Amino acid sequence: MTLILGIDPGSRITGYGVVQDTGRGCVYVASGCIRTGGGELHERLQIVYRGVREVIQTYGPVTMGIEKVFMARNADSALKLGQARGAAIVAGAEESLEIAEYSATQIKQAVAGTGGANKEQVMMMVMHLLKLTTKPQIDASDALAIALCHAHTRSSLLPHGLGAVRRRGGRLRL
Amino acid sequence: MTLILGIDPGSRITGYGVVQDTGRGCVYVASGCIRTGGGELHERLQIVYRGVREVIQTYGPVTMGIEKVFMARNADSALKLGQARGAAIVAGAEESLEIAEYSATQIKQAVAGTGGANKEQVMMMVMHLLKLTTKPQIDASDALAIALCHAHTRSSLLPHGLGAVRRRGGRLRL
Repeated sequence: MTLILGIDPGSRITGYGVVQDTGRGCVYVASGCIRTGGGELHERLQIVYRGVREVIQTYGPVTMGIEKVFMARNADSALKLGQARGAAIVAGAEESLEIAEYSATQIKQAVAGTGGANKEQVMMMVMHLLKLTTKPQIDASDALAIALCHAHTRSSLLPHGLGAVRRRGGRLRL
Repeated sequence: MTLILGIDPGSRITGYGVVQDTGRGCVYVASGCIRTGGGELHERLQIVYRGVREVIQTYGPVTMGIEKVFMARNADSALKLGQARGAAIVAGAEESLEIAEYSATQIKQAVAGTGGANKEQVMMMVMHLLKLTTKPQIDASDALAIALCHAHTRSSLLPHGLGAVRRRGGRLRL
């Protein structure tokens, strides 16, 4: 019964998703977006930092997954993403969470069964796995996908865990 | 008599410099490097975050300058720099400092009198302006240059301030 946080950082919107790993699958706990608004850079980064800490303090996850970025579109967008990512990671570290990074391919593989899944397919699988009846906002959905991937990977690493049996084949099952 | 912090963030080394603006020029207070070591990303970012907060708590600056980045070499280095920059900026914001950004050209202009100055020339001027007898480490020197630029710009903005008279022509004078 581990609470797991997924974070999808961005310079304008940072998505978060919290799921509970019951040992027999994951249950939805919460998700949403931290919007940074139109203030100065340090104000926007502080909103990310404080927002992530608030989510952690509210829901009490013990571990956090975040998307690993290999290729940003260009240096300018990479810098902006990096700043938001730095603020979010420091927030998790200051709350003493374990932090793991996953590539986009790993996340898609874990959630949709293929590293080539598109955003819509990932969202459909997130909704299916977590029994959501309404579409989450896209950044919240991505954050939930990261949380599911992190839950999946952690369970697979547990020796003789149920997870390793249940999740054979690189895809989460209900 | 304002204490001013300059920060030169980097994924491996973050330089810091503290100067005191006496109203008749700047006096050296402290400088150094925060080295992030070889740990995991979140550990390294936490070292930057905590290091910058510690510098602020130790020396008590009320305002902070940081270099504005226009062009990183590539997206990967921009992401890494962005993460460290995010951690450093959040640290300043959490310590309630005013935060200002300056371009490399502005910093060189303020310290060396020309936006085209090279690193060595900037260091020589930093040493001259702050009466340093030994060469500081390059990241610490860059941070001191940012602090001097920030002091210069703040004074110039003060109405009827000594600074505006003393620093005519875009260059700090002793």
